[in-house]
Amino acid sequence: MSQESFTEGDLRNTGMALKHERTWDYELDRIVEAVEERNAEKVGLQFPEGLKRRAPRVADDLRDLLPDGTRVLISGQPCYGACDLDTYMMRRTDVFVHFGHSPMKESDKILYVPLFSNVEVEPIMEESLAELSDPDDDPDVGLVTTAQHMNKFDEMREWLEARGYTVHTRRGDDRLTHEGQVLGCNYASADIDAEQVLYVGGGKFHPLGLAMEHPDKNVVIADPVNNVVTIADTEKFLKQRYGAVHRAMDAEEWGVVFCTKIGQGRWEVANDIVENNENAYLLTMDEVTPDRLTQFGFDAYVNTGCPRITTDDGPQFKQPMLTPGEYEIAVGEKPLDELSFDTFHGTW
Amino acid sequence: MSQESFTEGDLRNTGMALKHERTWDYELDRIVEAVEERNAEKVGLQFPEGLKRRAPRVADDLRDLLPDGTRVLISGQPCYGACDLDTYMMRRTDVFVHFGHSPMKESDKILYVPLFSNVEVEPIMEESLAELSDPDDDPDVGLVTTAQHMNKFDEMREWLEARGYTVHTRRGDDRLTHEGQVLGCNYASADIDAEQVLYVGGGKFHPLGLAMEHPDKNVVIADPVNNVVTIADTEKFLKQRYGAVHRAMDAEEWGVVFCTKIGQGRWEVANDIVENNENAYLLTMDEVTPDRLTQFGFDAYVNTGCPRITTDDGPQFKQPMLTPGEYEIAVGEKPLDELSFDTFHGTW
Repeated sequence: MSQESFTEGDLRNTGMALKHERTWDYELDRIVEAVEERNAEKVGLQFPEGLKRRAPRVADDLRDLLPDGTRVLISGQPCYGACDLDTYMMRRTDVFVHFGHSPMKESDKILYVPLFSNVEVEPIMEESLAELSDPDDDPDVGLVTTAQHMNKFDEMREWLEARGYTVHTRRGDDRLTHEGQVLGCNYASADIDAEQVLYVGGGKFHPLGLAMEHPDKNVVIADPVNNVVTIADTEKFLKQRYGAVHRAMDAEEWGVVFCTKIGQGRWEVANDIVENNENAYLLTMDEVTPDRLTQFGFDAYVNTGCPRITTDDGPQFKQPMLTPGEYEIAVGEKPLDELSFDTFHGTW
Repeated sequence: MSQESFTEGDLRNTGMALKHERTWDYELDRIVEAVEERNAEKVGLQFPEGLKRRAPRVADDLRDLLPDGTRVLISGQPCYGACDLDTYMMRRTDVFVHFGHSPMKESDKILYVPLFSNVEVEPIMEESLAELSDPDDDPDVGLVTTAQHMNKFDEMREWLEARGYTVHTRRGDDRLTHEGQVLGCNYASADIDAEQVLYVGGGKFHPLGLAMEHPDKNVVIADPVNNVVTIADTEKFLKQRYGAVHRAMDAEEWGVVFCTKIGQGRWEVANDIVENNENAYLLTMDEVTPDRLTQFGFDAYVNTGCPRITTDDGPQFKQPMLTPGEYEIAVGEKPLDELSFDTFHGTW
């Protein structure tokens, strides 16, 4: 790696925010190839929330490359992960492109474009050494990242090894595409034999989930996008969860949400609850929002869909919104000290 | 009709609000029969927004009547009309019940339960005479109502005829189930040879649409639910529409919304716009909300889905949101004085 390319991605002390979109690779050639192979008339594009603003320009670039008359459709459905495919669009377009997430499950129907970040990770890893043990004391460290930074995973590992660490990584389970990858709802890749885990990636969303799922590990966050090193602190999260569970203990009637999104359905979990509680009612929906629950007037809700809606959006709901595990505590089937993070396994 | 039943539904001067739910007929026997005929394991229930709060009690009553082990699912998807079927639930339940709307299209897959109102209409019709012409001067009057009051339609007609009026009614087109029925998006039943139309029904949502669609007619509202007689006044509506059109005239880039709801898709309309405007981009979604459009950053939007989202929710959108007809005016394809209400025809 040349010094020049290193400097380009190192934004520390520059006062600049990273402009991912300038350099992210939308892999238009691969899309054009698929359109030509299939003589596609309709091409569907689905972007995660944070990249939707780029959609018109990507559509422009694509239209320049595609045969006249090819219709480009942009999905306006909310999208927060690979679990969140626009299945309407998938069924009704000849080529369906899902940007920004790695495949939860390979399918001929879906063209996944991962959108790897071009940000350099070594400068922030250098800073993170202050929070990791000295390798002479404890060389074992877990290493995880997100789909966006997966292109640098080998580099991260080698960098740590060169400094004397023994790097522990796993692929996790079949919900995950890559070795060392975490999802907001799955941290199986951190089930490794080390007391510290280094998360290299943007934001606190993933490492907070990781720390909730692995409360015994020290989770160090090396964030190359915002240029900060921190320790994942779950205290605020846990207080909210305990608060919600306690408030739900008085609930008489429960709404049990079964999420209809392709990668978020846990029918057995939802069905078991209503089968064993005559005061529980099964609600089906795709987006789980406060507005959609208000009318039903239940005293508390269990969300069997995306765990992050429950934990991260929880305070926005008027009534307590629990994970399936928290529900068991609230109705007295499990003791309070068994409160744990809700994770999601398998595909669909 | 006995004096007693007349009094029961006449809430004028009682100070009481109508408690529809006490008397509405959910036709549980018909649902139980369908479950038994099909040996159904899963029964799906879909309610309009205003009746969702009744869903838990209807589910209770049903569960008492159904064989043990029959699973009752309640749709948490937003629902504003018969155009708005929860197709996910329809495909995944053995009996799918849609409450509160008349069939837009008959289907073996859907059990429609209309939920007729039990409110008496004659007291408020009596009051509406003050706003109708004297039958000696102009006996011609159109008569329309909504699905909820359709059970009283013959009674309304006879009541007017007994007072010397010539009552004009139509079935409208195949989007409508009943003679004299209006939808929020379809007023073909008011295409009759009379200068005045009497709307008997709750709220102003339908008669305002009617008056927009038929600006030459005097639309008298006899509202037996809120016990008021008024004249539909479209001035505020029209000002908003002209305002939106004017603001959109400067738009460089357009988002063209194709709605994926089963009864709200107008593909040809959406496709024609993007085919003829290289600065127009096709967006697909089910719920059309301000949140879902914000990220895309277009200067203006055209909604080819539900016209009422455009006209009634229009002011909530940050950018101008136009109907297809208004779009033609904004881009100069039609003169301003051709502004008209957007209606929806056909089924799916």
